[in-house]
Amino acid sequence: MAYLFDRVAIIGLGLIGGSLAKAARGENLFKKVVGVGRNEKNLEKGIDLGAIDSYTTHLAEGVSDVDLVVVATPPGVIIEIIKKVVPYIPDGCIITDVGSIKEEIVKGAERLIADNDKIYFVGGHPIAGTENSGIEAIDPYLFIGHKCVLTPTPKTNRVAFEKIKTMWEKVGCKVISMDMIKHDNIFAIVSHLPHVVAFSLINAIINIKYLQEDILSYSAGGLKDFTRIAASHPTMWKDIFLMNKENVLNSITHFQSSMEEIKRAIAEEDSEKLVSEFEKSREVRRAIK
Amino acid sequence: MAYLFDRVAIIGLGLIGGSLAKAARGENLFKKVVGVGRNEKNLEKGIDLGAIDSYTTHLAEGVSDVDLVVVATPPGVIIEIIKKVVPYIPDGCIITDVGSIKEEIVKGAERLIADNDKIYFVGGHPIAGTENSGIEAIDPYLFIGHKCVLTPTPKTNRVAFEKIKTMWEKVGCKVISMDMIKHDNIFAIVSHLPHVVAFSLINAIINIKYLQEDILSYSAGGLKDFTRIAASHPTMWKDIFLMNKENVLNSITHFQSSMEEIKRAIAEEDSEKLVSEFEKSREVRRAIK
Repeated sequence: MAYLFDRVAIIGLGLIGGSLAKAARGENLFKKVVGVGRNEKNLEKGIDLGAIDSYTTHLAEGVSDVDLVVVATPPGVIIEIIKKVVPYIPDGCIITDVGSIKEEIVKGAERLIADNDKIYFVGGHPIAGTENSGIEAIDPYLFIGHKCVLTPTPKTNRVAFEKIKTMWEKVGCKVISMDMIKHDNIFAIVSHLPHVVAFSLINAIINIKYLQEDILSYSAGGLKDFTRIAASHPTMWKDIFLMNKENVLNSITHFQSSMEEIKRAIAEEDSEKLVSEFEKSREVRRAIK
Repeated sequence: MAYLFDRVAIIGLGLIGGSLAKAARGENLFKKVVGVGRNEKNLEKGIDLGAIDSYTTHLAEGVSDVDLVVVATPPGVIIEIIKKVVPYIPDGCIITDVGSIKEEIVKGAERLIADNDKIYFVGGHPIAGTENSGIEAIDPYLFIGHKCVLTPTPKTNRVAFEKIKTMWEKVGCKVISMDMIKHDNIFAIVSHLPHVVAFSLINAIINIKYLQEDILSYSAGGLKDFTRIAASHPTMWKDIFLMNKENVLNSITHFQSSMEEIKRAIAEEDSEKLVSEFEKSREVRRAIK
């Protein structure tokens, strides 16, 4: 039987990397998987959970004989890792990533492999995160029914792109090809902004210091949904906000105007305005159900 | 068999009123229930769904021989309705409400019955709403495991209070007695603010007009949770925001500072600050799980 990839290195064995490895092994896409990371205990768990066959804490050793490298670390260190592994990667190897922002990563990766026409990079972003993170949360069905955005450029090798596309499709994703700049613009709005908002809300509540008792015990559905989002991985989100800074700041400004408008309508007791604004929100819900 | 109430009028047969009626009948707390509303089709459905025995569109007729009136309309019309029904209510009757804000309603209701020492008012707020509304969404198990806040005052009749407390307990609520001002203060933060934020977010996204295509199809968990909250009943939320105006404006201001702080940290690329803020959010999540 022919595997899609014979030897795969997963660098950063967290929710996404671990789930991909486990799902791909289940589908017989990967023959052997080596987990690469700094935390041996975590890597041991990866073996126990059936995500990887072996592990190493040495980057160079991990990638020395693989035909696929998946960089599944927080986005802020992806470029640094690609820089470190490029000298040790065998010819013909494909590198891909799972970072939630794409322009900075794709441009950086293409610069790093510019002198080597036997190594290929394909930027990817599976839209399948949850507020959970870490190897304990891995799930081979995580990707089923979710979109995975790939961001090819004129420099992207066509064969490499098709192999990465096949990999994500086989683990259950609907793969979409999109320009990296457009990707970062759209995700600033539909993903990064909601996270900024959720973090801001929870921190606002924490900061209301005059509240002596545990008011959170009175929270119903609304607040619980926010706290779920705001429990997302702190370092990963810090990286995303900084790497997509201009788009994120822009979307925050849009949000602030929208909130100021609702605040003013409340202050001025403009019932008509409030109801019509809320009706609009309701329609969006219907549209994306 | 003794019922807790023999004849009950539910004014406003929506999610809360309908679910209470159905749950209470299931527990043999109410002998006969009359639904009172303006929409006959809706009231017919109430009969079909087993929530009520009969209905009327005439307020006076609906309350003329009951021993409990539950006002389950949007909060903005509760006082108006109590005002209209008080002249027709028989001696010994208890009036209660399910409004999400309490000070304005409780004070208003107590003023309206001040001249009659044979009618009793108990303010209540079951914390069991969802983004669904309307009679179609009723669920006799809606209240199980949820809190119900009752807001007695020095004027509250003790026996009436105990009967309303028993009613909510028997349909599954954990009943909490709380000062009405404290109630409105706490709920401005844990419930009203999250709704303002969700409405603001969805409206901000709608207003980003330069987006030509359906970006919402890329939304993952985060945004979907917000759209769920923002699909809540527009009139009800307008009422809540206006009736709890000062507390809500105050909580919005807190939120705005918190968001401005995060925005500034992103603009200044203050990684340390961002991570520490997000770590705090994460702990809150753990606290209320």
